[in-house]
Amino acid sequence: MPSSSVNKDLQAERDKCSFDKNEFTLWWVGGKERLKEKEDLEDFFLNDPELQEKVPLHFLSHKELYEESVRKATVAFRKVRKMQEMGQDGVDNYSALLGGLLGTGILKQGNPLTVHYVMFLPAILGHGTPEQQAEWFGRAWNCEIIGTYAQTELGHGTFLRGLETTATYDEKTKEFVLHSPTLTAYKWWPGGLAHTANYCVVMAQLFSKGKCHGIQPFIVQLRDEESHMPLKGITIGEIGNKLGMNGVNNGFLGFDQVRIPRKNMLMKNAKLLEDGTFVKPPSQALTYGTMMFVRVVICRDMAAYLSKAVTIAIRYSAVRRQSHINPDQPEVQVIDHLTQQYKLFPALSKSIIFKLASDNLWEMYNQVTSELDKGDLERLPELHAIACCLKAITTADAATGVEVCRLACGGHGYMTCSNFYGTYGMVTAACTYEGENTVLLLQTARYLLKAWQQAKRGQELVPTVQYLARFLSNNNRRVDWDDSIDGIIRSLQTVAAGKLRLAAEHIEQRQKAGATQEEATNQTSIELARTADAHCRAFLVQSGREMIEKACQTASPELARVLRTLYFLYAYDEALKALGDLLRFTTISESDINRLQAKLEATLAELRPNAVGIVDSFDLPDDVLGSPLGAYDGNVYERLYEEAKKSPLNQEPVNQSFHKYLKPFMKSNL
Amino acid sequence: MPSSSVNKDLQAERDKCSFDKNEFTLWWVGGKERLKEKEDLEDFFLNDPELQEKVPLHFLSHKELYEESVRKATVAFRKVRKMQEMGQDGVDNYSALLGGLLGTGILKQGNPLTVHYVMFLPAILGHGTPEQQAEWFGRAWNCEIIGTYAQTELGHGTFLRGLETTATYDEKTKEFVLHSPTLTAYKWWPGGLAHTANYCVVMAQLFSKGKCHGIQPFIVQLRDEESHMPLKGITIGEIGNKLGMNGVNNGFLGFDQVRIPRKNMLMKNAKLLEDGTFVKPPSQALTYGTMMFVRVVICRDMAAYLSKAVTIAIRYSAVRRQSHINPDQPEVQVIDHLTQQYKLFPALSKSIIFKLASDNLWEMYNQVTSELDKGDLERLPELHAIACCLKAITTADAATGVEVCRLACGGHGYMTCSNFYGTYGMVTAACTYEGENTVLLLQTARYLLKAWQQAKRGQELVPTVQYLARFLSNNNRRVDWDDSIDGIIRSLQTVAAGKLRLAAEHIEQRQKAGATQEEATNQTSIELARTADAHCRAFLVQSGREMIEKACQTASPELARVLRTLYFLYAYDEALKALGDLLRFTTISESDINRLQAKLEATLAELRPNAVGIVDSFDLPDDVLGSPLGAYDGNVYERLYEEAKKSPLNQEPVNQSFHKYLKPFMKSNL
Repeated sequence: MPSSSVNKDLQAERDKCSFDKNEFTLWWVGGKERLKEKEDLEDFFLNDPELQEKVPLHFLSHKELYEESVRKATVAFRKVRKMQEMGQDGVDNYSALLGGLLGTGILKQGNPLTVHYVMFLPAILGHGTPEQQAEWFGRAWNCEIIGTYAQTELGHGTFLRGLETTATYDEKTKEFVLHSPTLTAYKWWPGGLAHTANYCVVMAQLFSKGKCHGIQPFIVQLRDEESHMPLKGITIGEIGNKLGMNGVNNGFLGFDQVRIPRKNMLMKNAKLLEDGTFVKPPSQALTYGTMMFVRVVICRDMAAYLSKAVTIAIRYSAVRRQSHINPDQPEVQVIDHLTQQYKLFPALSKSIIFKLASDNLWEMYNQVTSELDKGDLERLPELHAIACCLKAITTADAATGVEVCRLACGGHGYMTCSNFYGTYGMVTAACTYEGENTVLLLQTARYLLKAWQQAKRGQELVPTVQYLARFLSNNNRRVDWDDSIDGIIRSLQTVAAGKLRLAAEHIEQRQKAGATQEEATNQTSIELARTADAHCRAFLVQSGREMIEKACQTASPELARVLRTLYFLYAYDEALKALGDLLRFTTISESDINRLQAKLEATLAELRPNAVGIVDSFDLPDDVLGSPLGAYDGNVYERLYEEAKKSPLNQEPVNQSFHKYLKPFMKSNL
Repeated sequence: MPSSSVNKDLQAERDKCSFDKNEFTLWWVGGKERLKEKEDLEDFFLNDPELQEKVPLHFLSHKELYEESVRKATVAFRKVRKMQEMGQDGVDNYSALLGGLLGTGILKQGNPLTVHYVMFLPAILGHGTPEQQAEWFGRAWNCEIIGTYAQTELGHGTFLRGLETTATYDEKTKEFVLHSPTLTAYKWWPGGLAHTANYCVVMAQLFSKGKCHGIQPFIVQLRDEESHMPLKGITIGEIGNKLGMNGVNNGFLGFDQVRIPRKNMLMKNAKLLEDGTFVKPPSQALTYGTMMFVRVVICRDMAAYLSKAVTIAIRYSAVRRQSHINPDQPEVQVIDHLTQQYKLFPALSKSIIFKLASDNLWEMYNQVTSELDKGDLERLPELHAIACCLKAITTADAATGVEVCRLACGGHGYMTCSNFYGTYGMVTAACTYEGENTVLLLQTARYLLKAWQQAKRGQELVPTVQYLARFLSNNNRRVDWDDSIDGIIRSLQTVAAGKLRLAAEHIEQRQKAGATQEEATNQTSIELARTADAHCRAFLVQSGREMIEKACQTASPELARVLRTLYFLYAYDEALKALGDLLRFTTISESDINRLQAKLEATLAELRPNAVGIVDSFDLPDDVLGSPLGAYDGNVYERLYEEAKKSPLNQEPVNQSFHKYLKPFMKSNL
């Protein structure tokens, strides 16, 4: 076992931390009670020997990994039940286990029961009538049945209208006939579908009386409840190995004329009457709400994953020594190389700003849904637009950030046990699921184009696009640059507005030249995606400032100073990354640029002594980090060696392949 | 099996190709004879059932994957011997199998014998005396012994002087004692070291008569030649699972006072006499040569891997349909979305420009080494500087390019069978090995700082930095922008020179403020790395133009047009990515920017009908692509389904984990 003492370089970092780490942690997790809950939960789960790894997952075969994931998932959810029986609230426990860092600490490659909890149960609640909920929800909540949610198909993803699976109503028998007319209609991707679930909510094109009524949800039993054998007409299996999340048991599903009773169409919204008459739902607004909720959660998860990667990389960079700066001194901690700081600290600041953005979005979401309940839909499109681009930018930037952290750890970052790659697998997946990022940016852009027309007409604008009015009143002149935070926010907003104006003009020109509106929009889509990107970044810098200042109102001066420095780094880095745009749309000069770069470098220097203290404050236990490079004690090399020794290949001095293949080959030329 | 007919969308793409694909292929592979050799080699290896996958590697356990890799590696090299016996030249075959795409087609996770061929054998040749070569080379060439090359240690990577392993000369016994004084001194990473090799070239600090004489190479036997058991004093094993290359069998190695005879120090360069006297080598220049050679090879491999990823992504994008552009039309091929073209086509152009840059570097390398043989060292530092930054930029851009291709394929790109992730594992590893990229950029920058001083003194400059003189003669004024290729190259060079000037000034200012030169350099290292980046990109755009124009001299007008369009896209894309810098150092205006963006978009439109034709011309067989998304026939969905069916989990309808874990869990709440 690694020695129990803390690496002395890491200890020295902790000794020079200028703020109270406990204060930071309390702010970060949301107060004393939350912290206690979090730590209790971690104790309860992470110390259970049944939930610890005997052999690390990355040494197992694909099949063994699935079996181990089922084992651990059932152990974990039994424990949740136990907590509930002891009278403890269940919802937070579920969410920590399903989406949070605790869950990925226990099951690094994901959980085959996640979709049951996060999609199957909510689908019954969201789409089922009271009678349907009575029939299904209790059994599902008790896990007497395990479900999943099947929407995407082998040939169809983000574009829902393209789905091919049909559910045709047979008036004679009062049944739906589910069918996959082609191979591309096979459901593909749902988590838990392959060998875990026995029920499924299936999204299919409803046909009745020869007419299509669009995508509707149906509950379908897939497997026998006793034998788990697939039912007649159902072809089911798993889709294979993936870049990550191999414990999730993603599956495929084909239907050959499978009959289900009419009551299995979830009819809270749209309905099909017994005689086959289709009844439209009163409003589509509610489905927007769910999508936005999911995007808030994604944004928060991205921040969490990034905080994990950054913790590992910063601790390792304080322990690892390489190269001299001054030739007469010993090799320095790699964190002392300015280029290393410039890799890690912006990622650190992003993990904080993204979390605050998700908090901010969460507040907006609650406000908008309470307005929604009163029938006021006004801010819904605005919220949808900001949620789309935030999902796209936070997932993309977090993925880049995790990779930057990995690469900053050199060869050891390339080891699977360092846990960067597993984390990357989780993060990069989010660039694709729940709306592909480019598609989402273009949705935001479509909203911005509408807002632009409103602004030009002088109409009142909702908060996140009010900067368009200021831009227009400035009459196309470059905005004056100043490098205060206000100045930076104003400039980034001007960039977004300037790009939007150009994109709108180019669409107009292309339409005048004969293109349809859709063609013109496609021809301008590179610019449109960039416009949405700029809009989102301006929002993030502004939202970050609001949220940080809010925190500073109650923080000690020492903590406030650290938080503001983290924020300044974020803002300066975003500004310098947008330099080409700032030069186009503001008056920023050569000396301004040099000054801004100097300010950025000053924040790096200021953060340097507190870097380890900040990641310590995230309060991520070693079992959640799951990385020999990032452990609290900094015994990096001992732990790497311990990890290597766990390899099944290292359990015998000579592998059988020597006798079987290598020796005959080596002797064959004698 | 997938249907044998070609997907009709893909066929339609081929029908509209405007140039002769065969002509492109001949140019790309280097002539008729080369093409014949390549295709013969592919036939000979890829059609051998012994080299085909029964179960895809990604379903195996870590241990099984190694065993399968040894099996395939021995089969493959037996076949090479057979070819040699049939009188066919061996070197090209080896290089195709070891570094080329053919090798990764056979062994997607790398080959445990690669280091034997590419490092152990060359080390004996490069460092061994004629007597030592006589003793070791023949046995190694015949694979009677299998070797590896051990340099990096658990605690030490790029910074060679930090290595801790010692080789202490014992004058009494005329032996060296090899020793690992600490855990961080353990050798870590060498390919094949863990369970494959029985010999090793070990780099260790030579001590004699109480003095250290720096890093020297020693041949050490690791395992018994008959039993393969590790020898006394040797601790050996594998380092564990990695992001990629899990067939390579990377190992660790510790020495506990292991004695080897004096003749086992490789003494072609430095020598140790019997009495313990150390004799310095005459020159260090030769080791530069090897490093540069390796970097040429890396640059070429990056181009090859990127061409593979791009082929898969472009074919898939021609088959996949998603979303409407015009609402009354069917869903479009995703390659018709402009944003998709903007993801894929620049990556396509890079795969070509990087290959040409490696050809160019290869020519420079040959010229410089022939000068070297005549004792002329003048261009060595220049070549070293350009090789460093080319390695850094091509690996980084290729890694990004592969990921962009993967993400452009949505969910299916996330499947391991799509082969993006395996390709990424190969490419991103190259960002770290053979000199970590940031370290290499800073080495180039150090060279540029010297060249800057020479330029300021009015000294004559070598070709790759002659632009500095022009920059100086321009007296700090912004260079006039024009968007001709000449203008773009001149502007990019001006950017590099302008950044270099600023970095040099900032170092000077920091020294004046009291920093040592080393501290000042570290404090300026963000700017220095960017300067080297800009220098490299200017070189790539210039080199690309030269090489493309050379090709166009003999190409048909149709092919020349395609090649030039690919090049223009590369140049415009690089210019627009450097927009912030162009705005600082040139007179580029707002209307220039819009015009440049329009030119870029025009190249996308022009490439669109030829995209499939171009990737077809790379002539990569399906078994080399190794991806259901990229197969020549475009039967994407059938092939994905076939791949899924290979999963061991799909060989039985109910997995044992249902009975063992899931059913008891589901019933426990009843």
